Amino acid sequence: MLRILGIDPGLRRTGFGVIDAAGMRISYVGSGTIVVPSDIPLHERLKVILDSIREVVDTYSPTVSALEKVFVNTNPASTLLLGQARGAAMCALADRHLDVTEYTALQIKKAVVGNGHAQKEQVQHMVQRLLTLNSLPAPDSADALACAICHAHAAPLATRLSGQDLLLGTRRGRSRLRAGRLID
Amino acid sequence: MLRILGIDPGLRRTGFGVIDAAGMRISYVGSGTIVVPSDIPLHERLKVILDSIREVVDTYSPTVSALEKVFVNTNPASTLLLGQARGAAMCALADRHLDVTEYTALQIKKAVVGNGHAQKEQVQHMVQRLLTLNSLPAPDSADALACAICHAHAAPLATRLSGQDLLLGTRRGRSRLRAGRLID
Repeated sequence: MLRILGIDPGLRRTGFGVIDAAGMRISYVGSGTIVVPSDIPLHERLKVILDSIREVVDTYSPTVSALEKVFVNTNPASTLLLGQARGAAMCALADRHLDVTEYTALQIKKAVVGNGHAQKEQVQHMVQRLLTLNSLPAPDSADALACAICHAHAAPLATRLSGQDLLLGTRRGRSRLRAGRLID
Repeated sequence: MLRILGIDPGLRRTGFGVIDAAGMRISYVGSGTIVVPSDIPLHERLKVILDSIREVVDTYSPTVSALEKVFVNTNPASTLLLGQARGAAMCALADRHLDVTEYTALQIKKAVVGNGHAQKEQVQHMVQRLLTLNSLPAPDSADALACAICHAHAAPLATRLSGQDLLLGTRRGRSRLRAGRLID
């Protein structure tokens, strides 16, 4: 069984969602939104993200984590700020020795809604249905839970193919490949 | 006396430089370049930056830190990667309870060379001269030391004006203002 922590990082609001996955069966564990004060210096805002995610990891003890991959942003200043928030989130996960796999928004929407171009509200509704939640999850929590669900769907495939290291690599190997592609 | 840690963050190479400053008198303490392996996943690369800067802080015990502020980058993917590296660096500093002040390249070059549009080589030469080093510092170390020198020059001014909170704010206050401007 995997306990997956999904993170939707942002400088103002960072969503997190934790699910358990046994094969294709998934269940809700916890979720929430880290609201970062905007009236403190940047390095202190990043520290709020760092500390809060470390606290989430210590609380829920996930075995693996998943993050939405971001590609573009029209505004370079916003991209830099988002990058810094993502850096803080990934540092917190790596600092707790968690492996991080990144998924594109397309992959996440396809895994959750079945349509890579689904609306945000559809994702929220499908997350509620798939995890049999009593109410609609908040947008940031829903995105984080969707990312965790995406990893749950991808993980069995990786496990089935784990003997074929040259083709897909181990889960660790896949993560390497992904990071490599992002960088080069 | 201030012990200033300057950081020039990058995903492949992160420079650091430590100087002591007593008023306008500055002296060299240490410097180096953190070389980040490029064949490991992104979150592990960020953890190398996080761990190495925490180690630098533990080794040199600086009282304050300074970072070069970045504005634009034509390539959004590079901006995101740089943002993530900066996020990791700032997390390390904040995790060690260090205040971080950011300076633009213009401010740093003006403080070190006297000319905001100086070439990289001029910065290296002036850093060597100002800190009476036996040899030319490596480019990444030089940039980090230049950032620390810039803070040493700015700090006495901030101290002289520290009574005028409404005008410039305390050093802490200035840092807030700067972060605020970057964000809004």
